[in-house]
Amino acid sequence: MAGGRRDGGGNPDESRGPRSVRGSPLPAFGGTPPYGGRHTRLTTLRTMTDYRPPVTDIRWVLENVAGLGEISRIERFAHADPEVTSGILDEAGRFMAEVVAPLSRVGDRVGSRRNDDGSVTTPPGYREAYRRFVEAGWPAAAFPEEWGGGGLPTVVGIALQEMLTTADVAFSLCPMLTRSANELLLAHGSEEQRGLYLDKLTSGEWTGTMALTESHAGSDVGALSTRAVTADDGTWRITGTKIFITWGEHDLTDNSIHMVLARAPDAPPGTAGVSCFIVPKVLVRPDGTLGERNDVTCVSIEHKLGIHASPTCVLSFGDRGEGAIGHLVGELNSGMGYMFTMMNLARLMVGVEGLAVAERSYQQAAAYALERRQGRAVGDETGPSPIVRHPDVRRMLMLMRSGTEAMRCLMYRNGAAIDLGEHHPDPDVRERETALAGLLTPLSKAWGTDMGVELTSLGIQIHGGAGYIEETGAAQWWRDSRIAPIYEGTNGIQAIDLVSRKVAGDGGTAVRRLLDDLDADTAAAGNMVRTHLAAAIDACRQGTDWLLSAKRPDALAAASTYCRMLATTVAGGLLASATLGTGFSDEFLSDKAATTAFFSEQVVSGVPGMLPSVLAGAENLFGVPEERLV
Amino acid sequence: MAGGRRDGGGNPDESRGPRSVRGSPLPAFGGTPPYGGRHTRLTTLRTMTDYRPPVTDIRWVLENVAGLGEISRIERFAHADPEVTSGILDEAGRFMAEVVAPLSRVGDRVGSRRNDDGSVTTPPGYREAYRRFVEAGWPAAAFPEEWGGGGLPTVVGIALQEMLTTADVAFSLCPMLTRSANELLLAHGSEEQRGLYLDKLTSGEWTGTMALTESHAGSDVGALSTRAVTADDGTWRITGTKIFITWGEHDLTDNSIHMVLARAPDAPPGTAGVSCFIVPKVLVRPDGTLGERNDVTCVSIEHKLGIHASPTCVLSFGDRGEGAIGHLVGELNSGMGYMFTMMNLARLMVGVEGLAVAERSYQQAAAYALERRQGRAVGDETGPSPIVRHPDVRRMLMLMRSGTEAMRCLMYRNGAAIDLGEHHPDPDVRERETALAGLLTPLSKAWGTDMGVELTSLGIQIHGGAGYIEETGAAQWWRDSRIAPIYEGTNGIQAIDLVSRKVAGDGGTAVRRLLDDLDADTAAAGNMVRTHLAAAIDACRQGTDWLLSAKRPDALAAASTYCRMLATTVAGGLLASATLGTGFSDEFLSDKAATTAFFSEQVVSGVPGMLPSVLAGAENLFGVPEERLV
Repeated sequence: MAGGRRDGGGNPDESRGPRSVRGSPLPAFGGTPPYGGRHTRLTTLRTMTDYRPPVTDIRWVLENVAGLGEISRIERFAHADPEVTSGILDEAGRFMAEVVAPLSRVGDRVGSRRNDDGSVTTPPGYREAYRRFVEAGWPAAAFPEEWGGGGLPTVVGIALQEMLTTADVAFSLCPMLTRSANELLLAHGSEEQRGLYLDKLTSGEWTGTMALTESHAGSDVGALSTRAVTADDGTWRITGTKIFITWGEHDLTDNSIHMVLARAPDAPPGTAGVSCFIVPKVLVRPDGTLGERNDVTCVSIEHKLGIHASPTCVLSFGDRGEGAIGHLVGELNSGMGYMFTMMNLARLMVGVEGLAVAERSYQQAAAYALERRQGRAVGDETGPSPIVRHPDVRRMLMLMRSGTEAMRCLMYRNGAAIDLGEHHPDPDVRERETALAGLLTPLSKAWGTDMGVELTSLGIQIHGGAGYIEETGAAQWWRDSRIAPIYEGTNGIQAIDLVSRKVAGDGGTAVRRLLDDLDADTAAAGNMVRTHLAAAIDACRQGTDWLLSAKRPDALAAASTYCRMLATTVAGGLLASATLGTGFSDEFLSDKAATTAFFSEQVVSGVPGMLPSVLAGAENLFGVPEERLV
Repeated sequence: MAGGRRDGGGNPDESRGPRSVRGSPLPAFGGTPPYGGRHTRLTTLRTMTDYRPPVTDIRWVLENVAGLGEISRIERFAHADPEVTSGILDEAGRFMAEVVAPLSRVGDRVGSRRNDDGSVTTPPGYREAYRRFVEAGWPAAAFPEEWGGGGLPTVVGIALQEMLTTADVAFSLCPMLTRSANELLLAHGSEEQRGLYLDKLTSGEWTGTMALTESHAGSDVGALSTRAVTADDGTWRITGTKIFITWGEHDLTDNSIHMVLARAPDAPPGTAGVSCFIVPKVLVRPDGTLGERNDVTCVSIEHKLGIHASPTCVLSFGDRGEGAIGHLVGELNSGMGYMFTMMNLARLMVGVEGLAVAERSYQQAAAYALERRQGRAVGDETGPSPIVRHPDVRRMLMLMRSGTEAMRCLMYRNGAAIDLGEHHPDPDVRERETALAGLLTPLSKAWGTDMGVELTSLGIQIHGGAGYIEETGAAQWWRDSRIAPIYEGTNGIQAIDLVSRKVAGDGGTAVRRLLDDLDADTAAAGNMVRTHLAAAIDACRQGTDWLLSAKRPDALAAASTYCRMLATTVAGGLLASATLGTGFSDEFLSDKAATTAFFSEQVVSGVPGMLPSVLAGAENLFGVPEERLV
């Protein structure tokens, strides 16, 4: 087998090629983890970058909400105990802040550009940063050890992805899509296919894309019409045009592996007739070396509201006439099922985009609010006071901060559920956690990305007039945030997935268990926090009961609001149920208690008020006939 | 007196200069008003423009929520009865759709550009459109008849402003600022000053600006440091730099009149030492002809998130050394008070921006949702169905539509309160309506502009991936919307104004009367609508009682949420209390009932859920010490 597969365990560097650090996230780690609180290392970092990795916050959630201790008692994750993980986070934070974060502004201003020959030039600095990213081994960190990865749990991978995304959303999408393509290949590719592509995708030496969407097949993937026909040599010829292909063409690497959905002759209509093909940008010879350029062309890139550095491509397959050469993955007509393989992870990672932009926006807004002086705050002898002392500015900052922390609890617990669902030794735990991961994923994706938009908007508001000026940079996070509620399944589709499959699918078992657990785990919370949570949990239970007996249009009409109320409750409940943990300063823990109290009082308290909207049903929704809507 | 002042009444064209239509909004009116519903004239208009003026909706609100009939029984507004007004709206809608709306896209793409000589070039088409706008007499329409205006009530002026703004936000700001400058001059200028400038500003032949902000004096206007010293000839010399001056320099007209806040020698600190000066871009000779260029220079224009066609200028006064020539308005050190003269109207007009962008975004999203087909909707035999049939898409459209209609009710009632407060023959009514106008203004501004951002975001979401592509145009409304929560007093300042001055200022009298009126006026509403409104009104009463006895930091912490709950209740209550009115089709009225029901059930129903957040006070708000926020 050409390259790639190694036996598990041991030093991940042993059997690798020339780049000795590839496959390990640990090579450069040497310092001691920062135990003081989110701001202890900031002074140094702040001189270098405007992103300050919230390593202590992340560690606190990993250890006290996501149960990293329990996860690292699983044999395959034994090397990822809290102490080692803390060191990795520290190192990752430094890398993202120093190498990746400085890209975000130039990436926004310059953007990726398509050249006349169909090539795409990324903004200045992206090639060098990507090279260093690969050399340091970060793409492989959370990929299974036996396949050349660092073998970290998914939940730690989520933490790394958070910091990468906060540093630069546009940059982060390239490894994210590569990871998805690679997971697909790992799960459904042949031995030969994995041998040819997997190692290169794991290391990041090549990148991967997911090529699903066509102009008339967006949310309705099954409507796609890209064709695939067999060739004499057993390969396939792909013809068609795909749109919205993230990082579909670029100059970061020598090759890109497109995972393309297409339809074979006589395939059944809809999703049942969709197959998945590997279509490399540059053909790969059996010995792994690069051959001819395949017939895949980037015919244009989109002019977008945000994430300007991420080239969103129209890819044309088979322009030269014969079709692009493709390799069938797995069975014919099974492509849609394969896509679901890594859907939880992919959707969770998009949810993390909401968290990431909110974090970045918060950091900028908080720094501004401490510096900018206007008026005299109540209690100050003289003005002008830093605007952070004005209650309404403080309110916006606390909404951002507490919302970001609550999102992190939800998403990291979601990542942990994926780990436990796949690898816990007890099959009952695996079953329960798998159900939980399925349930939490649409919450992370839909609520997380909606919150990303809302909180980055507050980040602009805190800047006043300066927030509307592009040079300030506050507006970029808001523009960057706006794609996440749309792609990887719109938030409306997430909500439908939630009510139809995740809640109704098991008759409400998983959601009821989750609510019961939250109820029990927050029984000891402070009086005010407990009161609001209990009311929120009760409202969620009522909403759930109603949904389970509702007619389909009524349930669909209620889906988005139900998703929001459940997500808010779960995130707030996880925040409130966190154990305090050891190794954190009193100040840090006091701040956590304060953000928990604020989130309960200001956000969780609003959950019962959403219930009437859920219970309303679809009648008034369709009260205006569609032709009179315009 | 040079030009301008005329005796009231009669044909407004009689005493005017060469442009015979100036001063009258009626010249081109000749057709019959559209009585069928918002979509009756759309087919024709849609071939010409992508803005379809919702004339029937506007007329319905004017007649059945804002009480236009009552207003037109006031003698000075006798010519603005519902029938005549309907014709004016029809004509205005046609003009805005055909002449102004086509500017919005090119304005966004090209933007206004500053040239090396400090001049500013507006995007292609703006000069011609502005010329036609002035020639048709629109700037003068709602200005008092005795001062050369069309003498329409403010509330009808709000309707015209809505359509102008929906057609193009960036364009609309130029007449809006001119109107503010002109109101200031009318109220506080000398006979001579009004003689020189008022007529030209009324007609729009010249434009006006408001020059308040400096880099260290934004929300804190009193911190400004622009200096004014007397000259031998009785004029003043102004030196300093103003920022964020909307339409501060442009090529639409021969002259601009800047209303500049500055500080005279030995002026008291803060707002008590601020004076207001007229600083013309080109000096005006006593006979009204143009003289030398004044020493005012546009040194840069901002690169903004939206409203690209509106040049946001840094203006430098007195670069040549002597200071720009200025003329004191009214008394020294009274400038801040003068600014409050037209504050209600100016803030209401910014609120209307939220309504306007939401309307435009809704129209585009609704058209898209009827055209775009994806998946098969419940109830359809075959797919793909227009996405408007999917409940979650329909939900977003109905949130946009009903929210826009509710905003319109609030803002037009606000405009009517200004009219009745100024001109009603009964002094008790004037007093009550003046208090109401003061109370409604922060609701219109803060809630209206927040809703503008939220609803245009839904407009993007409905477009799916296409919404993120700039060419689609859906993103522009969202970008354009984002400034309105910031300028003309941030929404946080609006909320503080609400709780401190408008609610606590009269011990809650005005707000309690408003809630009682809403309660009485909706007593006959349908069961579900009534239930939600009663609960919302009750929550507002509880919030009000709490606020009136709260300590200042607690009240300030609660301000924004209280503002939102009150605005939602008032807007929803006005929508529900509207009389059905005559002259509207059954279909139109049925649709109004449907949007009212939807808004009550989905939005008003959430009001009681906001109360705990209001009652929370400031304790947890300040739980994290400011130095640990970063």
